[in-house]
Amino acid sequence: MAATPEITNPDTGQSDQPSLGEIGLSSFVPYLLNRIASSWNMEIQDTLRKQNLNTVRMRALAVLTVKNGLSIKELIHLTVIEQSTLSRALDALEKLEMIERIASKDDRRVRTIYITDKGRDAFSNVWPDMFFEYNDMFAGIDDTERARLVQTLHKILNNLGVKDPGS
Amino acid sequence: MAATPEITNPDTGQSDQPSLGEIGLSSFVPYLLNRIASSWNMEIQDTLRKQNLNTVRMRALAVLTVKNGLSIKELIHLTVIEQSTLSRALDALEKLEMIERIASKDDRRVRTIYITDKGRDAFSNVWPDMFFEYNDMFAGIDDTERARLVQTLHKILNNLGVKDPGS
Repeated sequence: MAATPEITNPDTGQSDQPSLGEIGLSSFVPYLLNRIASSWNMEIQDTLRKQNLNTVRMRALAVLTVKNGLSIKELIHLTVIEQSTLSRALDALEKLEMIERIASKDDRRVRTIYITDKGRDAFSNVWPDMFFEYNDMFAGIDDTERARLVQTLHKILNNLGVKDPGS
Repeated sequence: MAATPEITNPDTGQSDQPSLGEIGLSSFVPYLLNRIASSWNMEIQDTLRKQNLNTVRMRALAVLTVKNGLSIKELIHLTVIEQSTLSRALDALEKLEMIERIASKDDRRVRTIYITDKGRDAFSNVWPDMFFEYNDMFAGIDDTERARLVQTLHKILNNLGVKDPGS
């Protein structure tokens, strides 16, 4: 990240940088990604609310259904949610008995986060609608195109310094 | 959106639906998109803060730099930000004199939102860092792959019922 904003291009030192209008909103990938993520999050909002969940809580649970027993640091990394926001969500999930945080025997300050059966049930209840929306997103997009998209998204995540959750 | 969550697949009525674990976090596109969007938003947060902006305010300004003079409804559509969240952001931007809302002569309740010179300046100050991050995202991704990505993202937006901002 460049320290201070400047009109010159940080790469070339030249002021040959196109404006957002020149690139065009409909070609500017961060804009498209934000719109898709927002739109996806809105689509599943009602479903989440019925289970006392919101997007942040659901994302934490989703990761824990796949990889249970994580430190807060690992969970921040896997969800890319800010620490303060994630901590609030975890407090709420603990009250709802959907997760539990168990202190390490060696160091009581270190706690590992586990999803409970109640948490798994809540996620199981939202998953069918999420999966339905997911299939909807890919109408008319074949397996090759989907695989290509996933590949490019991984390259972008890698460029942004976010490690593959599978690695 | 299916009305109530159920374990059967809403498309086929069968319970042959894979779990998130079976699909794998690293292949589940909504997860990848949320991570990229979050990570992008975090990367530019410091830059935005220096201009009294946050992600929502910046997204509203960004759209207005390209298409000035919008109704709240149009701005909601183009940013895919919830009405209450967007309204709060617009109140803040108005206080900062970065936008103005001008009432219609015919109907005082209808107001059109315009970016001001101050708003354009603020966006110009964050744009170099945003553009730098944007280029960074695409390191090692050539023009063909980028164009293919944009094309697939447009299909997804279309499937989600979000119209192309260029159309």
